[in-house]
Amino acid sequence: MKKTKKNSVWGTRMNKVVSSVLQSANSSIEIDKRLFQEDINGSIAHCTMLAKQKIIDVTKSKKIITGLKKIEQEIQKNKFIFKTKYEDIHLNIEKRLFEIIGTDAGFLHTARSRNDQVTTDFKLWIKKSSNEIKNLLNVLIKSFLNLADKNTDIIMPGFTHLKNAQPVLFSHYLLAYIEMFKRDIVKFNNVINNLNENPLGAGALAGTSYNIDRHLTSRLLGFSKPTQNSIDSVSDRDYAIEFLFASSLCAMHLSRLAEEIILWNSDLINFINIEDSLLTGSSMMPQKKNPDSAELIRGKTGSIYGNLNSLLITMKGLPLSYFKDMQEDKAAVFSAYDNLKLNLLLATELIKGIKPNKKKLYEAALKGFTTATDFADYLVKKGISFREAYKKSAQLVNIAEKSNKRLDQLDFTIIKKIDPVIEKDVMNVFDIRNSIEKKISFGGTGRKNVINMIKKIKKEFK
Amino acid sequence: MKKTKKNSVWGTRMNKVVSSVLQSANSSIEIDKRLFQEDINGSIAHCTMLAKQKIIDVTKSKKIITGLKKIEQEIQKNKFIFKTKYEDIHLNIEKRLFEIIGTDAGFLHTARSRNDQVTTDFKLWIKKSSNEIKNLLNVLIKSFLNLADKNTDIIMPGFTHLKNAQPVLFSHYLLAYIEMFKRDIVKFNNVINNLNENPLGAGALAGTSYNIDRHLTSRLLGFSKPTQNSIDSVSDRDYAIEFLFASSLCAMHLSRLAEEIILWNSDLINFINIEDSLLTGSSMMPQKKNPDSAELIRGKTGSIYGNLNSLLITMKGLPLSYFKDMQEDKAAVFSAYDNLKLNLLLATELIKGIKPNKKKLYEAALKGFTTATDFADYLVKKGISFREAYKKSAQLVNIAEKSNKRLDQLDFTIIKKIDPVIEKDVMNVFDIRNSIEKKISFGGTGRKNVINMIKKIKKEFK
Amino acid sequence: MKKTKKNSVWGTRMNKVVSSVLQSANSSIEIDKRLFQEDINGSIAHCTMLAKQKIIDVTKSKKIITGLKKIEQEIQKNKFIFKTKYEDIHLNIEKRLFEIIGTDAGFLHTARSRNDQVTTDFKLWIKKSSNEIKNLLNVLIKSFLNLADKNTDIIMPGFTHLKNAQPVLFSHYLLAYIEMFKRDIVKFNNVINNLNENPLGAGALAGTSYNIDRHLTSRLLGFSKPTQNSIDSVSDRDYAIEFLFASSLCAMHLSRLAEEIILWNSDLINFINIEDSLLTGSSMMPQKKNPDSAELIRGKTGSIYGNLNSLLITMKGLPLSYFKDMQEDKAAVFSAYDNLKLNLLLATELIKGIKPNKKKLYEAALKGFTTATDFADYLVKKGISFREAYKKSAQLVNIAEKSNKRLDQLDFTIIKKIDPVIEKDVMNVFDIRNSIEKKISFGGTGRKNVINMIKKIKKEFK
Amino acid sequence: MKKTKKNSVWGTRMNKVVSSVLQSANSSIEIDKRLFQEDINGSIAHCTMLAKQKIIDVTKSKKIITGLKKIEQEIQKNKFIFKTKYEDIHLNIEKRLFEIIGTDAGFLHTARSRNDQVTTDFKLWIKKSSNEIKNLLNVLIKSFLNLADKNTDIIMPGFTHLKNAQPVLFSHYLLAYIEMFKRDIVKFNNVINNLNENPLGAGALAGTSYNIDRHLTSRLLGFSKPTQNSIDSVSDRDYAIEFLFASSLCAMHLSRLAEEIILWNSDLINFINIEDSLLTGSSMMPQKKNPDSAELIRGKTGSIYGNLNSLLITMKGLPLSYFKDMQEDKAAVFSAYDNLKLNLLLATELIKGIKPNKKKLYEAALKGFTTATDFADYLVKKGISFREAYKKSAQLVNIAEKSNKRLDQLDFTIIKKIDPVIEKDVMNVFDIRNSIEKKISFGGTGRKNVINMIKKIKKEFK
Repeated sequence: MKKTKKNSVWGTRMNKVVSSVLQSANSSIEIDKRLFQEDINGSIAHCTMLAKQKIIDVTKSKKIITGLKKIEQEIQKNKFIFKTKYEDIHLNIEKRLFEIIGTDAGFLHTARSRNDQVTTDFKLWIKKSSNEIKNLLNVLIKSFLNLADKNTDIIMPGFTHLKNAQPVLFSHYLLAYIEMFKRDIVKFNNVINNLNENPLGAGALAGTSYNIDRHLTSRLLGFSKPTQNSIDSVSDRDYAIEFLFASSLCAMHLSRLAEEIILWNSDLINFINIEDSLLTGSSMMPQKKNPDSAELIRGKTGSIYGNLNSLLITMKGLPLSYFKDMQEDKAAVFSAYDNLKLNLLLATELIKGIKPNKKKLYEAALKGFTTATDFADYLVKKGISFREAYKKSAQLVNIAEKSNKRLDQLDFTIIKKIDPVIEKDVMNVFDIRNSIEKKISFGGTGRKNVINMIKKIKKEFK
Repeated sequence: MKKTKKNSVWGTRMNKVVSSVLQSANSSIEIDKRLFQEDINGSIAHCTMLAKQKIIDVTKSKKIITGLKKIEQEIQKNKFIFKTKYEDIHLNIEKRLFEIIGTDAGFLHTARSRNDQVTTDFKLWIKKSSNEIKNLLNVLIKSFLNLADKNTDIIMPGFTHLKNAQPVLFSHYLLAYIEMFKRDIVKFNNVINNLNENPLGAGALAGTSYNIDRHLTSRLLGFSKPTQNSIDSVSDRDYAIEFLFASSLCAMHLSRLAEEIILWNSDLINFINIEDSLLTGSSMMPQKKNPDSAELIRGKTGSIYGNLNSLLITMKGLPLSYFKDMQEDKAAVFSAYDNLKLNLLLATELIKGIKPNKKKLYEAALKGFTTATDFADYLVKKGISFREAYKKSAQLVNIAEKSNKRLDQLDFTIIKKIDPVIEKDVMNVFDIRNSIEKKISFGGTGRKNVINMIKKIKKEFK
Repeated sequence: MKKTKKNSVWGTRMNKVVSSVLQSANSSIEIDKRLFQEDINGSIAHCTMLAKQKIIDVTKSKKIITGLKKIEQEIQKNKFIFKTKYEDIHLNIEKRLFEIIGTDAGFLHTARSRNDQVTTDFKLWIKKSSNEIKNLLNVLIKSFLNLADKNTDIIMPGFTHLKNAQPVLFSHYLLAYIEMFKRDIVKFNNVINNLNENPLGAGALAGTSYNIDRHLTSRLLGFSKPTQNSIDSVSDRDYAIEFLFASSLCAMHLSRLAEEIILWNSDLINFINIEDSLLTGSSMMPQKKNPDSAELIRGKTGSIYGNLNSLLITMKGLPLSYFKDMQEDKAAVFSAYDNLKLNLLLATELIKGIKPNKKKLYEAALKGFTTATDFADYLVKKGISFREAYKKSAQLVNIAEKSNKRLDQLDFTIIKKIDPVIEKDVMNVFDIRNSIEKKISFGGTGRKNVINMIKKIKKEFK
Repeated sequence: MKKTKKNSVWGTRMNKVVSSVLQSANSSIEIDKRLFQEDINGSIAHCTMLAKQKIIDVTKSKKIITGLKKIEQEIQKNKFIFKTKYEDIHLNIEKRLFEIIGTDAGFLHTARSRNDQVTTDFKLWIKKSSNEIKNLLNVLIKSFLNLADKNTDIIMPGFTHLKNAQPVLFSHYLLAYIEMFKRDIVKFNNVINNLNENPLGAGALAGTSYNIDRHLTSRLLGFSKPTQNSIDSVSDRDYAIEFLFASSLCAMHLSRLAEEIILWNSDLINFINIEDSLLTGSSMMPQKKNPDSAELIRGKTGSIYGNLNSLLITMKGLPLSYFKDMQEDKAAVFSAYDNLKLNLLLATELIKGIKPNKKKLYEAALKGFTTATDFADYLVKKGISFREAYKKSAQLVNIAEKSNKRLDQLDFTIIKKIDPVIEKDVMNVFDIRNSIEKKISFGGTGRKNVINMIKKIKKEFK
C-alpha cells in the first residue's frame, strides 16, 4: 500500500501525504519531549495494569516494559532521535518501541488514547514541577531569613506611596516578602492538591469496554483516585491554568522585590550594594554596573502573565471534548516554569548578594517627619481624640517644615504651644528608635516582635 | 483657618484646595460604597476591642457603635448621601459619624489607618461574595443533575475536534460540566481559606504603639488569626487576584457551555430547543429567535479575564507598601463578580430552559462511523494487537465510506474479509446502544456508570 | 394578543415574557446611551437618504427628523427616561419616536438593522473621541514644552537601568516624553483613518433590496465611502480594538511618566516639588503628602490594558456575522476612554504643577562617574580605539571609586598614568556642563540642540 | 589582570566572575541571533559613516567591513559559533571581529552603544518581517479570491447569532474575510510607516560628542530620518508593540475563519470537505479525520494575544531610559511572528484545500425562514410601515412554524390573510435565489455586486 509510505502516522485512513506546513505546525515533539519521563512512567503503569487485568498477557507486558525502560535510558543519555514526523512524544516513543521489541508494541495502546495519555503526563509533570518551585521558594525564604536575622539593628523608612511614612526595621521589611512567598507555597500546594485525580483510562473521551482498573493506575502513578467523568477528563486543563496563576502571583511578588532592589541600588538612593557577580556592564559607558539580575526578574513578569492569559484565552469557548487548540498548553506552562525558576534563582542570589548600607538607611528614616503619627498617638494617650490629635500633629509638621528642621530638632517651647497637655516626655516620641520599639502590636515592627517572628519562621523553614 | 475650608479632607497639611481632576480621579466612593456593610462591621469590631483594651472608654465606644448602626440603617434604606469630596466609604462614614455623635467620633480611628481598614473590608467582602458564588454554582449543578437525571436514555455523538468520535449518553455529557463546576467550588473554597488572616491592626504599615488585641478583632470578624507582618498586610492583594482567577476559570467553563448551547441551538444542528423567555429577536429579521443569553455568557468572559489581567498588571513592580494604584482592585473585582453572577444565573436558566431533541441527537450519533473503535476493540479481544486492529478498522471505515454506508449497514461477508477472526457476533459492536452499554470503565459513558454517578452527586448536592 | 403585552420588544414571535435575568444581562442601555448623539445623527442621515431615494415620502421623513431632534433635546436636557425593557439606545429612541409622532415612526427602520446601525454609531463615537484624546495630547505636549522651555539650564543625570549614566538637560528629558505623545497622536490619527468606511446600509448582514444610496449617507455622516461587504460590515470591530491599542500605548507612556514623578517626588530622591492641590493625605499619618495623581495614572494602566485584552478575547473565534458577544465592545471602549482622559488631564496638571529642584538634580548628576564615557571619547580622539579607551576609562573609574572621589576631583598626575596621550585638557571632559555642551549629534542633549528642538516643536504645537 | 580572565565581557570594572544563573538569564544570544543580518547591516552603515566623517580612517573602516561580511557569510553558512558568555548578537559579532581583524575591531563601537544599536536592528527586522507578513496576506487573499470566483453560484445561509438569518452567496461570505485581511495589510503598513525614524546615533541615551552624520546612516539603512530625541530613542519599543497589535488583530481574523472551518467540517454540519493532507487522525479512533490545521490556527491566537499583553506589561511603569526588562521584547515578537506566519500558511492551504458542499449549503439556506425579511420588505413596498410589516411577517413565520412548513411551501390563501395588500407576486419573495438577486445595495450579496467586487479586488491583488 503506497499510502502507508506516504503518511507515516495515519496511513490507512488518509490518502494524501500530510502537508509540510501542517506537519511543522502540528508537530509538538520539540516542546512535549520534556514529558518523556512522565510518558514512560504512565505507559509502564498502564501496561502493568493491563497485564494484571489480563487484558494483555504478562509476557507481552514484560517485553513492553523492558522496551520502555530502554527508551528511557536512550533519552536520558541523549541517544534518542526525536522525529518531527511522529508528531509528539507519545508516538515517538511508541514508534521506537516497535523498533526495539517488534509488533508486540502494538498491544501497549490497548484501552488508551493519546487524549487521556497526554493529560496524565502533563498532570504528573506539573506536580513534579510545582514541588520544584516549592523547593526554590523554600531556599529563597531561607535567604531572606538569614539576611533578616543578621540585620535586626538596621532602621529604615517604611513607605506608603513611596513617601517616607514611619520608621521600620529593615528585617521587618524583609519579613514582609517572606509572607508573600509563604502564600506562594500554599498556592502551589493547592495546584498539587487540585490535580490529584487520574485521567488515565478515560480513553478518547467515552471510557473503554476493557475491564481496566483505574484505581490501580492511580496508585501506581501517585494520584489519589481516578477522575469521575471521561469526557471532562480529556477536556480539562484547569490544573495547567492554576499552575500559571500560582506562577503569575509568585512572579508578581518577585517583580515587587526586583523593583525595590533596582531603586535601592540606584546612585540616587544607594541603600544597598550588590555583588559584582550579579551586575553587568555597558558596552559604551565604562563606569556602569547595572542590576540586570533584578531587571530580568521584573521584565519576565510580563511573559509569565502572558502565559496565563494565553491559556485562558485558548480554552475559552471550546465545546467538549479534546481539541488540538489545547496542545498550546505545554508551551505556555514550560515557558512560565522556566522563567519563574530563573527568577527564583536570581532572587535568591540577589538576597544573598546584597549588603544593606546601614548609615544611608538610618539617615533616610530621619527625613519626612516619620514620627508625626507617634506624636499624634502621644496626644491621644493624653486624652485627645485621634482625629483632633492628627490635626495638631499636622500643625507641628508644618512648623518644622517651615523652619527646615526635623521634628526632633524642634524646641520644646515651640512644641508645647500645640497643646497644653504636652509635657517634657514628648521629646522621646520623636526618636525613630523609640518609635520602632513601641510598635508592640502583633505583626508590628517592634524589635521583639521581629526577632520572635524570625525565630518562629526559622522553625518552619529549618 | 482658611485652609480647612478649602480642603475638606486634608485641610491642615495642604495649603491648596484639591484639584477637581484629582478629586474625581481619586474619589472611589461610587465604587467602594459597596463595602459599607463590611466597613461598619469592621469599625464596630475595632471599637469594641478599643474599649475592651481600655484604649478608649466604654461610653464613647457605645456612642460610636450606636452611631455606626444608625449609618448602617441609613445606607440600607438609601437615605445616606455619599459625597465625592469625602473620597471613599471610610471617610464618608467617619464624616457622617461626626454629624451624628459629634467630636467623640474622632476616637474611632485610634490605632487604625485606612490602609489596614480597606483591606480588612475587602477581604470580608470577597469572603461573602465567594460564598454567594458557591451557592450559585450549587444551584447550577442541581439544574444540570436534574436535566441529566431526566434524560438518561438520550444518545448523542461525543466529539473530539468537533468531529463525531464515539456515542455517549447525553447525561454523561452534562455530568462533564458538573465536574468543572465542582472544581470551581473548590477554587472558591481556596479563596476563602487563603484570606483567613486579619489585617486589621497593621496600621498604616508599621503596626501601632497602642495595646490592641488583634486576636479579638479576628474572632469578632470571623478571621482565623491576625496577619503576621504589618507591612505585608497593607500591601497584599493576593486574595483579590485569587478571586479573579477562580472567577476566570469558572467563566471559562461557562463559556464552553455557552458555545455548546449556541451550536446546538443553531438551525444547522438543532439538538435543543430553548424557551422563548431566554431568546431575543432581531430589529429587522422577523423570524429570528437568538440565543442572546448564551452569547452574553460567552462574551463576558473576555471582560472577566481582562479584570484578572488588570489587577495582576497593576500590582506588578510596586515596591512596598501601600500605593494608590491598589485602589483599582475594587473596580476589577466588583465587575468580575457582577458578570460572573449574571453568567451563572443565565446558565442556570438555560439549563432549566433547554429541551433536548432526542431524535436529532440519536441520528447524529449514527453518523461518522462512531463505532470504529468498538470494532478495533472487538479484534483485540480476538487476539490481535490494538495497533493492528486499528488499521483493520480503518480499512473497514474506508470501505463503508466508499459505498456510502454506515458501519452497521455493511454486509457481514464484506466485514469478514477484513480478518479471519471475525465472527457473526461482530454485528453487535456496530450498534451505538451496545457501544455505550459496554463502556463500563470507571467514569465511562456506560448507562449504569452514569446513573450511579448521578445518584452519587445528588447526595453531595441535596 | 396577550403575548404582545408580555414581551415589550419581540412580542409577535416570542410566546413568553423575557426572563428577568436575561433582561438585565441583555439590556445595554445604561452603557450605550452614551451613543445617543451618534444614533440620532445616523438616523437623520438615514431618513434623509430614504426620502431622497423616494423609499419613504418626504412628509414622513420630515416628521421623523423633527421627532428625532426633539428626542435629542430631551436627552441633552436630561428629560429623557431610558428604559431597561427597551434594551438599548436604538430601541429607546425608536419607542419614544412612536410616542411623539405616532405610527409613522415605523418607517424609520426601513432598509436598516440594528446591526449596521450600532456599528455606524460606534464608529462615529470613536472618531469623535479620538479627536478629543488628540486635543488632550496636544495640551499635554504644550505643558511639557512650557516646562522644558523654562528650564533649559537644569542639568540632571540621565539613567540607564536607573543607574546614573550620562549628564543630560532636564529639558531634553522632557522632550523624550513629547516624542512619545507625538507618536500617540499619530496612532489616534490612524484610528480615525482606518474607520473611514460607512457600514450603514449593510442591513442585518446581507444588504437590502431597497434602492438606498450609501454614498449619500457616507457624505452626510463624514465617512469617506461605504464599506464594501455587508457581512463584514456588521461583524467588524477592528476599529474599536485599534482605539484600545492606541489607548494602551498612550497609557503605557503615561505610566512611565507617572513612575518618574513618584520617584522624583519621594523623600529619598526629592528632585521635584508638586503643588499641594495634586497631593493627598493619609488618614493616620499627619505629615503625609502623597502623589496620588501619579499613582492613579499608573494604576489605571492595568485597567486600560485589560480592556484591550478583553475585546480581543471576545472577538476571538466568532464565526460571521453579528453575535451578542460583540455588545461587550462598548463597556471596554468607554472605560478605556474615561480612564485615559482622566490620566491625560492628571498628567497635564502634574506637568503644570511640578517644580524641579535644580540643586538636587545637579548634585545627582555629579555622582556615578557620569563623564566616564566622555573620558573614553577623549582617548579615542587621541587615536586609541574605542574598545581600548573604554577599558582605560574603566580603570580610572576604579581608581576614583577606591579613593572615594569623583572623576573631576582626581589629580591630573593620577589620570595621566592611565595613558601617555593624556594632556592637561583632559580636565575639561570631567565637567558635566562640558559633557552636555558637546553632545552635538542630532537628537543629542547638547544645549543648542535642545533649544532648537523646543523651537521646532513649538511651531508644530502652537 | 586575573579579573579580565574571570569576566569575559565586563572584565575591567567587575571584580567577580558573573553568576552562572545571571549569565544564563541575561544571555539573549539564543533569541537575538535572529537579528544577525540587521546587526551586520547596521554596523556596516555605521562604519561607512564613521569613515566618511573622518571619525575613523578609511583603511580601518574597510578592514572592519570586510570582517563583518566574512562573519555574515559564516552565520549564513552555519559556521558561526554563538557563545552564551558573549551575551548577545552584538557582542558575539564584535568578539568574532576581533578574532578576524585584530584590535582594529575596537574602532567599530565608536560613537555607538548597544542601546541604540539593538533598537536599530530590531526596527529593521520588524520592517522586513512586516513586509513578509504582508506578502503572506497577499497570497491568502488571492486564494480566497480564487475560491470565491469559482463558486459564485453557491447559496448558503447567512448567520447572525449562528441562527439562519438571510440567504447569501458563498462567495460573498468569502469576500467578508478578504475585507479583514485587507485591513490587516493596512495595519502592517502602519507598523512600517511608524518606525521610519532611525535611532542609530542616540548612543547610550545622550547622543555623542563625535561629529556623526545620522542622516547618512538613515539613508544607508532605509529610514526616512533620524529620531529627534536620544533618550526616547533608546527607550522606545512602540514599534514592537504595534507589530504585536497588528499580529493580534490578524490572528483574531484567522481565528474566526478557523472556527468557521471547524464548524463547517463537522459531521453535524458538513458544509465542506477538506483535503486529507490537512487533516490528522486519532491514536485510538480509526475513523477520525480531524481539522487540526484549523484548530492550531485558533489555538495559537491565545499565544499571540499573550505576546502583545506581555510586552505592554513589561513596558509599563519603566522610567527612562533603557532597562534590561526591554530585552523581553524580542522573544515576544519572534514568537508572535512565527505563530502568525504559520497560521497564515495554514489558512492559505485550507482555503486551497476546501471543497464546498453545494447541495448541503443550499438546503441549509432553505431552513430558518430566511426570507421573512424579504416578505416584510414586500409589504413596505406596498405602503405599510416597516415596523408594521415586520409584525405581519412574524405572524406568517409563526403560522409556517406551526404547520411545520417553509415559507415557500405555504398556500397563497393563507399568506393573503395576513394583509389585503398581498398579491400573487408575493410567492417570488420566498425564493432564496430571488432574495439574493435583489440585494442590490452597494456591498450587498446580490450576484452582480459580488461578481463586480471579485473583479475589483482581483485588480488590486493581481
